[in-house]
Amino acid sequence: MSAGIPTKESIEAAHKLVMPYIHRTPVMTSQFLDNLCSAKLFFKCENLQKIGAFKARGGLNAILSLSEEQLKNGITTHSSGNHAQAVAFAAAMVGAKAYIVMPENSPLVKINAVKGYGAEITFCKNTPEERERTVQEIIRETGATFIHPFNNYEVITGQATAAKELIEDVAEPLDAIIAPVGGGGLLSGTALSAHYFSPGTKVYAGEPEGAADAVLSFRSDKIEKAPYVNTIADGLLTYLGDKTFPIIKTYVTDILTVSDEEIIAAMRYLWERMKLVVEPSGAVSLAAILKNKEQFQGQKIGIIITGGNVDLGKLPF
Amino acid sequence: MSAGIPTKESIEAAHKLVMPYIHRTPVMTSQFLDNLCSAKLFFKCENLQKIGAFKARGGLNAILSLSEEQLKNGITTHSSGNHAQAVAFAAAMVGAKAYIVMPENSPLVKINAVKGYGAEITFCKNTPEERERTVQEIIRETGATFIHPFNNYEVITGQATAAKELIEDVAEPLDAIIAPVGGGGLLSGTALSAHYFSPGTKVYAGEPEGAADAVLSFRSDKIEKAPYVNTIADGLLTYLGDKTFPIIKTYVTDILTVSDEEIIAAMRYLWERMKLVVEPSGAVSLAAILKNKEQFQGQKIGIIITGGNVDLGKLPF
Repeated sequence: MSAGIPTKESIEAAHKLVMPYIHRTPVMTSQFLDNLCSAKLFFKCENLQKIGAFKARGGLNAILSLSEEQLKNGITTHSSGNHAQAVAFAAAMVGAKAYIVMPENSPLVKINAVKGYGAEITFCKNTPEERERTVQEIIRETGATFIHPFNNYEVITGQATAAKELIEDVAEPLDAIIAPVGGGGLLSGTALSAHYFSPGTKVYAGEPEGAADAVLSFRSDKIEKAPYVNTIADGLLTYLGDKTFPIIKTYVTDILTVSDEEIIAAMRYLWERMKLVVEPSGAVSLAAILKNKEQFQGQKIGIIITGGNVDLGKLPF
Repeated sequence: MSAGIPTKESIEAAHKLVMPYIHRTPVMTSQFLDNLCSAKLFFKCENLQKIGAFKARGGLNAILSLSEEQLKNGITTHSSGNHAQAVAFAAAMVGAKAYIVMPENSPLVKINAVKGYGAEITFCKNTPEERERTVQEIIRETGATFIHPFNNYEVITGQATAAKELIEDVAEPLDAIIAPVGGGGLLSGTALSAHYFSPGTKVYAGEPEGAADAVLSFRSDKIEKAPYVNTIADGLLTYLGDKTFPIIKTYVTDILTVSDEEIIAAMRYLWERMKLVVEPSGAVSLAAILKNKEQFQGQKIGIIITGGNVDLGKLPF
């Protein structure tokens, strides 16, 4: 288990470790969106990943890094959705018990998926304090190992493998890669993979205006909370951690905010033009590129589509 | 231009001809759906094809097979949607003018896409006679070459390339491939590709109960119309042609019918579990496998997902 900021070697090792359990998701292109942006876009389709989101990577790497002794007592986490599925899925892969704490207002499709992997769900109120308290209770009772959704180096290392594949699968060098930022697990992993495997590639983040903590933190140089939280991008509500923030501060070029309207418009393009079911959080990166077309004109841009776990009964269009 | 039933060589030549213009669409798998069917399913994702449907293949092959003289007068066709887009797209690729006759009740998303490729649209009433009459008028006025949506050997040969890729991209030999049947262009092409490139693979068709002409024709050994036409699978309303029927009769093992309810349930699985935007016609093959699980148990089955051009404002769930 690595003890510090993930190295090139630890990302390579993580990739070998998780590869048998995950899809090498396709990198897709769209002539229509290229024309719209006057750029060349490469979409890394992690909505087509196991569990419908990139989080399968981090969950697997964290759990596959545990000892047999630790696995025996099970695994626990709290999550509004995709990380919950990731941990439930990864635990099932290694035959360990998963105890998942989910906010009571989680989308039904995510709750059912977690149940489908055989995990035990405990519901709680949707505040960081309540989630934390419930997880602590489970740990006291069972001795389960807590897997943080993002502030965990094994999770960050696992998420880094998505950008590593993107870099490997696009023949030409990318000018930029953009990923959404919530707690920063994917973003910090993406920034490290670009740094190690494609040093000429700049990394950007897309963030909802209604959960704009990372951009504030990035500018003020300390972890800040969002001034208000109100966005359709329900996967990006959390703020940065003490492990993700320093990596982001060092290796990310800029954080670009987008409105919910812009997120929904980008989502619609992905559904209508690319035939991909993408959740709002997964459309934030494209929204940020569409909003800043001039800045990215003529560039080759990798866009990480993070997930597709959306309630079909509650679509914004 | 070939004059008879497509040969192995003509399908190989067509594949080389269209390849620079199309996506080699991914073959995807789903653990969830494999478990549900107790089979191993390989989904050929032609919803991710250019124009959002396999019809780009047939349209391209037909148009790329025309002489410069013919291209000068333009191309015309009638279609409820995907073939219209295919011809408009292929015409744009070779710089020819496209005159497209569309039923006035065509989905808006399809009309807009055809316009987007620069084609000239003429609307008509949605009867075979009216479509035919309008196309004949265009031919008289312009000298354009008519590209039939399915009863055309170059179109059939183009559609055959989808199954050819599927066969090439699945490491193990397939026990079966299933495609939906409307006019039979894709189905006859699929049957020929299996015959030439994977002779041990049986080919099945899925057909909506509400447009069940092919199954009737298959049993009675002559081209029949459906007893009634009423289905959500709006891409499969037509009946077989004198070029597609003999191929289907010779090389297809069986035609399996499904209800609209079964089509919508399969569509929901594809959206929710595989994160793919698939139109109702595109879900018919999976619906047929789900309905006949026992028959296909333990088999390796290629499923052609034909298209994803659906009006997001009019979803059945």
